[in-house]
Amino acid sequence: MTFPPLREELRGIEPYGAPQLDVPVQLNVNENPYGPSPEAAADIARAVGRAAASLNRYPDREFTELREGLAAYLNSSGGHGITPEMVWAANGSNEVMLQLLQAFGGPGRCALSFAPTYSMYPEYARDAMTEWVVGRREEDFSLDLDAARKLVLERRPTIVLLPSPNNPTGTALPPEAVSALCEAAASYEPGGLVVVDEAYGEFRRAGTPSALELLPRHRNLVVTRTMSKAFALAGARLGYLAADPAIGDAIRVVRLPYHLSAVTQATAVAALRHAPELLGRVEDLRVERDLTVAWLRDQGLEVPDSDSNFALFGRFPDRHAVWQRLLDRGVLIRETGPQGWLRVSIGTPEEMTAFRHALTDVMKEQA
Amino acid sequence: MTFPPLREELRGIEPYGAPQLDVPVQLNVNENPYGPSPEAAADIARAVGRAAASLNRYPDREFTELREGLAAYLNSSGGHGITPEMVWAANGSNEVMLQLLQAFGGPGRCALSFAPTYSMYPEYARDAMTEWVVGRREEDFSLDLDAARKLVLERRPTIVLLPSPNNPTGTALPPEAVSALCEAAASYEPGGLVVVDEAYGEFRRAGTPSALELLPRHRNLVVTRTMSKAFALAGARLGYLAADPAIGDAIRVVRLPYHLSAVTQATAVAALRHAPELLGRVEDLRVERDLTVAWLRDQGLEVPDSDSNFALFGRFPDRHAVWQRLLDRGVLIRETGPQGWLRVSIGTPEEMTAFRHALTDVMKEQA
Repeated sequence: MTFPPLREELRGIEPYGAPQLDVPVQLNVNENPYGPSPEAAADIARAVGRAAASLNRYPDREFTELREGLAAYLNSSGGHGITPEMVWAANGSNEVMLQLLQAFGGPGRCALSFAPTYSMYPEYARDAMTEWVVGRREEDFSLDLDAARKLVLERRPTIVLLPSPNNPTGTALPPEAVSALCEAAASYEPGGLVVVDEAYGEFRRAGTPSALELLPRHRNLVVTRTMSKAFALAGARLGYLAADPAIGDAIRVVRLPYHLSAVTQATAVAALRHAPELLGRVEDLRVERDLTVAWLRDQGLEVPDSDSNFALFGRFPDRHAVWQRLLDRGVLIRETGPQGWLRVSIGTPEEMTAFRHALTDVMKEQA
Repeated sequence: MTFPPLREELRGIEPYGAPQLDVPVQLNVNENPYGPSPEAAADIARAVGRAAASLNRYPDREFTELREGLAAYLNSSGGHGITPEMVWAANGSNEVMLQLLQAFGGPGRCALSFAPTYSMYPEYARDAMTEWVVGRREEDFSLDLDAARKLVLERRPTIVLLPSPNNPTGTALPPEAVSALCEAAASYEPGGLVVVDEAYGEFRRAGTPSALELLPRHRNLVVTRTMSKAFALAGARLGYLAADPAIGDAIRVVRLPYHLSAVTQATAVAALRHAPELLGRVEDLRVERDLTVAWLRDQGLEVPDSDSNFALFGRFPDRHAVWQRLLDRGVLIRETGPQGWLRVSIGTPEEMTAFRHALTDVMKEQA
């Protein structure tokens, strides 16, 4: 035998591996720099303590209380009439994405997105044995709507993945673009779902609407969210979606039984009770984001508009050298996106000061 | 479009759905009836409280402390030189199984097991787009080793799934069978992994060895375990495997990034510290299991030998009627396995008394 008998197409592939390094300033994986308050942490511990007494029992397979909490949260922050039946959740929005691909993708079907975009999408498609079709974004990372519509009609994907704001560029999509692609994807057989990945949705700038508002108009629209970013709960792994209830029903066929642990459910429900406090920092981060974008531009760097908690900046003839020299100064950012660009997550004012000082030094060295 | 555009082969399929009913005596999903002690529950809550303070950060992708704890546990209970590098874990052993199928199965490959067996295996294979090949067990639910070897050599599966003890029959496999099938699966290209699912391994009778003992002899052997059953932690969703480190490395290519939350890791690590206490009830359950099997046989029922925390019994011309009448008396068991059989999980002595009384009544009615 060939040991181990790994699938041919997986051989030699490096697993996802953003470096987990112990450095003073971590601005590499778009985490929220503000942890839960002592009150929120204590409430989470109490909730898990209560759940712990009956951990010998399987969790509520339908995570009813959590779906109610998520629906209430979406309605309080701009959703319109989201019911618990419209909500589905899993261990991180990447599991939500995999479940969507397992239910609606698979052999003989394709999923489509527009690059540059989140590096894991093609891997999820590959793991669900779904062909990955990729269009291009414009030079400024926006979408040429006519070209996008044309590609959808030509390739007839069953899933169109539209992150908004996009990672790693920070670019949000206008609602007209989402609507037009929903209509295009509904015009052929068997039709396509348009999945707007709003992992960073809460950080959008004033005036940028959420795709949640479009749900009443497009049955094939799915909006995904996560508690990892604005909610400062990356460690708890809780992603979710809002869509027509038929989407959740379809996912129930492929979801692993009891995929959301009682501990995860208790943690997320407790955190939702602290939503105003956990989200209070979002405004601070948006301010810091805008300051960072402005400062980077002042240094003569290109920075696409960001509706997210990170900024893409460039271009550097040798981006790896810049990344490494920042790391040498204790500042970890991310070497991702198109050649020549780097991405920095928005941290605390102190962390961003450290980043600015380090980058100033590095750019002086390079000049 | 056809809404929702579900894959053709998934249409009309009912999702996994063991009834979650609020009845006094729950003996339907092989849960451990004994919850964590107040001390263990408090320790879990404390551990999660500590983890909660930094939930804004992604969890340790390599769950190093948990792998160390699981390796130590396996070595303390009959494993031989299991190192942390040999351990992999996921959200329930069903996620471990799906990851194995994603890495080693997929289109053009097949997975093989012997029926009657766990009803979810074919669904995991389907979700990983892997052909499902099923041989038959003998009348007493044991394996005809010559026929099994022949089927493996003929179909050349890349994964052979051997639950031991088997669900829903309770039947353990002799080590000679595991060894012979490991050798058979290593004799062709690309070769097959033999996955011995020991979800119920800790309940095996004295003299029944664990397949862990065979790991040094067979590189293509994978032994899976769970904390759901003997460990009384079904609500925490923690399954794991022990195998050659190359297996974990292969799974890293298909696992979702950060698939094990910080909360799950903290919960499992804390529970492992209470292993002697949590496992102390296993001996009680084995005694109760043997009493239940003997009593059922005394009633003139057929019961295969059980190395697990449940017993299959039959046969009934109308098993659904028996199941329903037990439920009417507040006793929920499981309608599963071959036609005519029912499965009862082993509960507390009080719960098993209630079960015996209810079944006696129902059988009198039926006579």
